[in-house]
Amino acid sequence: MTALITFVTDYGLADGFVGVCHAVIAGVCPDARVVDLSHGVPRGDIGAGALMLRGALPYLPVGVHLAVVDPGVGSPRRAVALATGDGRRFVGPDNGLLSLCFEPAGGVVEAVDIGSSPFVLSPTSATFHGRDIFAPVAARLAAGAALGDIGSSCDPEGLVRLELPRAVVQDAGLLAHAVYVDHFGNVQLEASGADGAAAGLRAGERVVIAARGESWPGVYGRTFTDVPPGELVVYEDAERRLAVAVNQGSAVVRLGVSIGDSIRIAPE
Amino acid sequence: MTALITFVTDYGLADGFVGVCHAVIAGVCPDARVVDLSHGVPRGDIGAGALMLRGALPYLPVGVHLAVVDPGVGSPRRAVALATGDGRRFVGPDNGLLSLCFEPAGGVVEAVDIGSSPFVLSPTSATFHGRDIFAPVAARLAAGAALGDIGSSCDPEGLVRLELPRAVVQDAGLLAHAVYVDHFGNVQLEASGADGAAAGLRAGERVVIAARGESWPGVYGRTFTDVPPGELVVYEDAERRLAVAVNQGSAVVRLGVSIGDSIRIAPE
Amino acid sequence: MTALITFVTDYGLADGFVGVCHAVIAGVCPDARVVDLSHGVPRGDIGAGALMLRGALPYLPVGVHLAVVDPGVGSPRRAVALATGDGRRFVGPDNGLLSLCFEPAGGVVEAVDIGSSPFVLSPTSATFHGRDIFAPVAARLAAGAALGDIGSSCDPEGLVRLELPRAVVQDAGLLAHAVYVDHFGNVQLEASGADGAAAGLRAGERVVIAARGESWPGVYGRTFTDVPPGELVVYEDAERRLAVAVNQGSAVVRLGVSIGDSIRIAPE
Repeated sequence: MTALITFVTDYGLADGFVGVCHAVIAGVCPDARVVDLSHGVPRGDIGAGALMLRGALPYLPVGVHLAVVDPGVGSPRRAVALATGDGRRFVGPDNGLLSLCFEPAGGVVEAVDIGSSPFVLSPTSATFHGRDIFAPVAARLAAGAALGDIGSSCDPEGLVRLELPRAVVQDAGLLAHAVYVDHFGNVQLEASGADGAAAGLRAGERVVIAARGESWPGVYGRTFTDVPPGELVVYEDAERRLAVAVNQGSAVVRLGVSIGDSIRIAPE
Repeated sequence: MTALITFVTDYGLADGFVGVCHAVIAGVCPDARVVDLSHGVPRGDIGAGALMLRGALPYLPVGVHLAVVDPGVGSPRRAVALATGDGRRFVGPDNGLLSLCFEPAGGVVEAVDIGSSPFVLSPTSATFHGRDIFAPVAARLAAGAALGDIGSSCDPEGLVRLELPRAVVQDAGLLAHAVYVDHFGNVQLEASGADGAAAGLRAGERVVIAARGESWPGVYGRTFTDVPPGELVVYEDAERRLAVAVNQGSAVVRLGVSIGDSIRIAPE
Repeated sequence: MTALITFVTDYGLADGFVGVCHAVIAGVCPDARVVDLSHGVPRGDIGAGALMLRGALPYLPVGVHLAVVDPGVGSPRRAVALATGDGRRFVGPDNGLLSLCFEPAGGVVEAVDIGSSPFVLSPTSATFHGRDIFAPVAARLAAGAALGDIGSSCDPEGLVRLELPRAVVQDAGLLAHAVYVDHFGNVQLEASGADGAAAGLRAGERVVIAARGESWPGVYGRTFTDVPPGELVVYEDAERRLAVAVNQGSAVVRLGVSIGDSIRIAPE
């Protein structure tokens, strides 16, 4: 049976970083099937990488999940591999990147520090741990190694965890933060459909979207085409988060928001 | 034997949409080999996606051809799978995207509506049918399912078909439309080498290229290096369509044309 | 056992050129595993492609190494396949692209001209030899063909070779050329750590970086985080070349240099 490795980074595809990691994996575990989740995480943006991995998780077969967004490469931050309650293994830097998956994956049941793993490449560069540490260790796991074989045990409680800003219901509206913008310009909020319902949003009804001191009319809909081209729609997106889109346009351009900005959505 | 799935979308590679579809396919059919044709079709441009698929078709092994350029996702447009006379299966939205392949693939011999397929993911999002409908159904076909297993029969005659503007010979020249621009800036026309010959174009001879009220000298050649760097060449491209290029430069910048613009090429 | 093909081009990922080559390979050798090294080599930049391939080489399992950066496609430049002393096979245009790998791969022991190979696609386009010549021939090699089967013997001594500008120690400093800029903006020099040591650079000590008549302070460090955010660091990069970076910033923007510019690095 084929071992599956999923792979997400901020390396981009232009420079060959991703390709070299694939080559290293192919050398260690020729039968592994590598699924590139994305290599377009914004440079150094641990939060964006963590959100992308969390969003994809329900659709990833159980396997080895390799993630590298690592602005602290070469500094003392740890490199880790861990196992979760649902049988998955994760490999990456201990900087919070993996942490949004801990709870949905059933909690971390075992963790090892792989910085001095016998399977890292030697010499180990100070700047490309994806190639020299993370990829070869992930490939070993895919090839059948146990966590205990590849690193030294560490306390799962000590792993770095990200905290995301929570959405709040306020003045009969929902106040939530923009956490991701996709290449269509759709703005994802850290809020669920249930948060929207609690704030009085009703499917098909008109809403007011406010950000940065401005406001715009929109509709709380199901999909882009629920509004005419050029109009704003708030909807539960494919990761079951609330999002704002412009049908055939770009919500991030319309609203002028950035990641981390708060957005208010209220019934009209 | 390995089942082949080719995959083309306008999802881009930054956001993880493509990666999640790959993961879904890997879950359903771990042995499928997925060939990414491109995920850089201009957003929502059904015509560009259809042309890319038609251009690649002669080079694609018989398999399952998954294509998603779907600005109407979540609206009542149908999701379909179909079989062609040459043994291929196609999966995608019924919006014309697949239609330029119908004739070269031997005609549509069977079609099914997969919107309510037993193999779609549940819950099915309103905005990401690539992940929830098209990818899992394509993977089922690759894993051996028959069309009749995955959807309800529909009339091939009712499928949406694109019409492309025809090239015409006029005033001893060829009038054709720009239908694609690649990342080198080469401008592909909806015209064949035979159209060029009918218009009096002869290999190695000088031509005049006219668009938007301007005109430029060029050569009707075989390849870029048939003209000095910076000069225009008209040639039969690798998809056997006429195209305009600048050797070591960009024809789309030089001519200032857009997709759909008409271009006139005549002997000097 | 799985045959490995690595693949590097300047085709970009938007247009489907790469995907069609994958499809051709899948048709000829369905079991080949293709590792995309990068398709983001700057357009027509043979030197950048050659450097990328040389940098990746130590990490590539022995296999077939397909490389296409080919501004002279359709001109009389040769298409070649060759075998090196370490058992690798390389396929690409004879324009220097492969040549930086000759020495590290143990020298060229056999070379064939594949322009008239029995395995090229017919008709052969004048502009897309990646699809019509290089990909099918590489796939034949992966499927077990010998060099003698796929082309006509030619003299390895006659292959085009690139010359890179050498770093020189001068006035107690190192003068080297910028040869590559990655998407983080890190500037790679054609110089090794040994060159740096010969010029008196010492780990952890301050340096002066000079280019284009300007100069900037920096540190000769191990990794980005050896300097505060926004400061310059000179370091031995993951390909064991000296490079200049800005921690959490872009050295190419800071220095304003281009490929080929000379940069002087001296102890403060």
